[in-house]
Amino acid sequence: MPQLGLLHWRAWTVLLGQLRRPPGAVCIRAVRSHSQVAEALFASQLKPDQEKSNFIIKTPKGTRDLSPQQMVVREKILDVVVSCFKRHGAKGLDTPAFELKEVLTEKYGEDCGLIYDLQDQGGELLSLRYDLTVPFARYLAMNKVKKMKRYHVGKVWRRESPTIVQGRYREFYQCDFDIAGQFDPMIPDAECLKIMCEILSGLQLGDFLIKVNDRRILDGIFTVCGVPESKFHAICSSVDKLDKMSWKDVRHEMVVKKGLAPEVADRIGDYVQCHGGISLVEQMFQDPVLSQNKQALEGLGDLKLLFEYLTLFGVAEKVSFDLSLARGLDYYTGVIYEAVLLQTPVHAEEEPLNVGSVAAGGRYDGLVGMFDPRGHKVPCVGLSIGVERIFSIVEQRMKIFGEKIRTTETQVFVATPQKNFLQERLKLIAELWDAGIKAELMYKNNPKLLPQLHYCENMGIPLVVIIGEQELKEGVIKLRSVASREEVAIKRENLVAEIQKRLS
Amino acid sequence: MPQLGLLHWRAWTVLLGQLRRPPGAVCIRAVRSHSQVAEALFASQLKPDQEKSNFIIKTPKGTRDLSPQQMVVREKILDVVVSCFKRHGAKGLDTPAFELKEVLTEKYGEDCGLIYDLQDQGGELLSLRYDLTVPFARYLAMNKVKKMKRYHVGKVWRRESPTIVQGRYREFYQCDFDIAGQFDPMIPDAECLKIMCEILSGLQLGDFLIKVNDRRILDGIFTVCGVPESKFHAICSSVDKLDKMSWKDVRHEMVVKKGLAPEVADRIGDYVQCHGGISLVEQMFQDPVLSQNKQALEGLGDLKLLFEYLTLFGVAEKVSFDLSLARGLDYYTGVIYEAVLLQTPVHAEEEPLNVGSVAAGGRYDGLVGMFDPRGHKVPCVGLSIGVERIFSIVEQRMKIFGEKIRTTETQVFVATPQKNFLQERLKLIAELWDAGIKAELMYKNNPKLLPQLHYCENMGIPLVVIIGEQELKEGVIKLRSVASREEVAIKRENLVAEIQKRLS
Repeated sequence: MPQLGLLHWRAWTVLLGQLRRPPGAVCIRAVRSHSQVAEALFASQLKPDQEKSNFIIKTPKGTRDLSPQQMVVREKILDVVVSCFKRHGAKGLDTPAFELKEVLTEKYGEDCGLIYDLQDQGGELLSLRYDLTVPFARYLAMNKVKKMKRYHVGKVWRRESPTIVQGRYREFYQCDFDIAGQFDPMIPDAECLKIMCEILSGLQLGDFLIKVNDRRILDGIFTVCGVPESKFHAICSSVDKLDKMSWKDVRHEMVVKKGLAPEVADRIGDYVQCHGGISLVEQMFQDPVLSQNKQALEGLGDLKLLFEYLTLFGVAEKVSFDLSLARGLDYYTGVIYEAVLLQTPVHAEEEPLNVGSVAAGGRYDGLVGMFDPRGHKVPCVGLSIGVERIFSIVEQRMKIFGEKIRTTETQVFVATPQKNFLQERLKLIAELWDAGIKAELMYKNNPKLLPQLHYCENMGIPLVVIIGEQELKEGVIKLRSVASREEVAIKRENLVAEIQKRLS
Repeated sequence: MPQLGLLHWRAWTVLLGQLRRPPGAVCIRAVRSHSQVAEALFASQLKPDQEKSNFIIKTPKGTRDLSPQQMVVREKILDVVVSCFKRHGAKGLDTPAFELKEVLTEKYGEDCGLIYDLQDQGGELLSLRYDLTVPFARYLAMNKVKKMKRYHVGKVWRRESPTIVQGRYREFYQCDFDIAGQFDPMIPDAECLKIMCEILSGLQLGDFLIKVNDRRILDGIFTVCGVPESKFHAICSSVDKLDKMSWKDVRHEMVVKKGLAPEVADRIGDYVQCHGGISLVEQMFQDPVLSQNKQALEGLGDLKLLFEYLTLFGVAEKVSFDLSLARGLDYYTGVIYEAVLLQTPVHAEEEPLNVGSVAAGGRYDGLVGMFDPRGHKVPCVGLSIGVERIFSIVEQRMKIFGEKIRTTETQVFVATPQKNFLQERLKLIAELWDAGIKAELMYKNNPKLLPQLHYCENMGIPLVVIIGEQELKEGVIKLRSVASREEVAIKRENLVAEIQKRLS
């Protein structure tokens, strides 16, 4: 199994496990004094009614800054994900952060109220993108692209009430991989599931399971159980809650809140409580009622093929046919899937963390056609990795271990033990930079030696070059290893080569 | 000079020079038929008044998608920039795409009308970030960080009228590097200019010049020339136009539009038309009028020190003291700078392209204090690279050359010459993926061999593995080099090792 690209597994464990807790977003209440307000008014020629004396410095609700420590972790996670997408031959694509408002409308069902709109400041009506799938479909239709395998890593925005303990934010990264085009059935779909397995294994988040279902099977079940078509949507969203609620409660919601006949609900219950492997697909094929429904049969046929391919890919045991899986988004038309982590806390002192699904996707054969003037369809299947939720797990682990990780890549520090050596230090560091060596110095005219060496130890900088009167006279530079504290004098003209040798 | 990180210079030239023209954003007018509208209404239970029958599929004004070809180029540019930032010891940081509206107000002077606001959908009033500097200052104040060297690569948004020929967009990437903290004068400032030189040299965009000035010198000039303090801002913005307008026209604007006394304008003209190296700094020190102004003297003293450090860094000849440089943003307090490309078209057939400034920055010692409840200041200096403008130059060059660049990294294609080999192909490709090899196959049950080989040639995939009946029987796989068309049979168990050997 390819794991973590260039990152060695132990290094990753250290990284994931031993990161310090981030500083966190502390809110500062800025109560300005009267004289400060007066100053501000003078400086910016504000009218008094624009005064904001109780302004709180914070990031918007549901958003956060990523500190340098967090950036290192996120970049490692993204690296695993993007390497996998590239391993599967995907091209990169980028789309704007906002789209015309009408591009996003009618795509997300009940969730459409969570879209951020931009203020009408004259011109077009715009909305922040809600996912990366709809912009991809818009791109395909706009450029008449009929076939494309692309990945896209970018932020999306949803006005959800942020439950931060669950790793849900209003701004978050999505990593999407999609295959557009007319192909023989289930080959791209199986590749998407294979990719999810590779990424979740590669990230070493513990055991996981991918639930699969098919929209056509769900619709078939509703039809044969006698759900009126007008209630499909509402009943579907009740079914989707079975991962968090008992069947008894879901049944109650269907009957009492959504007005479904109790015997219809019971018939649905017989189906949607089933989950299993390929044998369950076979069993459903034999089901005397469901097998009468054409749509359901199509879905079952595709799932059978899917399981066959997943077996060849060696990942069938990670996938479960789960008839309760419904997925919220409107645009899915066939197979749907969702990966959940199976949480056995690694350490006894770790609290179990409900991270929900960490990856999901499905087939959406109609979405591109919604953008095409003549309704030309481009079948698509894809997946999305929820980086933020994966990040939450890592943050949880940060609490347990304590070792520092490096937030810079500096290789060499330029130091001096003497006064009036700024000029020599500047000349020396420019030589290093120009040779491509990552180097820092202290922004002080006359720093003391000890703080310079301490800085290197704190920041994990491996090498120090030291220049002083003696060295200048002799045409050498002292090269010091921070770890061993050994020092050797090196001829100035050989310094770059020696550093490069030590770093390689 | 470190150039282009891992990219060899020839490869870069090929990349920059030989990229195909991107497909471009063609607008499709989507006139739906009546039956389609009816269908859509049925499907989404829309009210008729929400119908949009003349919907145009496009990206919002001033924005664009980046195609896979363009993504490759942008990633190479970002790689050069970020490598340089890391070479100088910067940490990464990320902030949300939007901020509380009040975080952005009173920071950008006349430009504040260009800020995108989000619609008030209940809750906080939000705006899209306008640069990466103000969010950085907000981060420092919020977390009480007194010292930090960070880089940030991210999109920013400005509601400018998009003049696409000039590489100006409403959504664009900025790459920022900033040094926050109280240090000995001009050392961080000189490093910022050194970084700009390294990046612009590394990107090989041709000759460039960095103009520097100091806000305190400009203010001093206005004071000694007799500009009323209330007119500083207006006159400053006139001066800033000297790179596009003649002095005669700027003088006219000052006198006629802005009501400045003609003799005051003439006095200003004597100063702001000067530019030169360190000798001009010395000359201004000797100026009997300007040398009476304390602010100007401080600025001149710092510039003198700056030129001394730039000489030690070996970049002084790239920097020009230009008294007309003013910079639009409100928050600068000291040295300011702007890099411009000196355009001699590389090829006779190339049209000259006005790309304006490609990098800029300066010192802003008061911005963090604006966010701190007690006004505690954290002095900062930084720079911003305008990736979009650099990208425009590359796009211009794309027109001239024609060689294709690869948009995927696929190393091996899994092919078959025979029918009914899908299962074997799937098993084989999973082996390759699991070994970390980048591999693709055709999503067809029974593809013909020739299209499979053509695909490899078109996409630049170097190796093909071929499995058929003969190979299956003998326990071998045929390994084909696409370039030489040579084929060898390799034992299946040795295939991964052989491929890895060939790719290394």
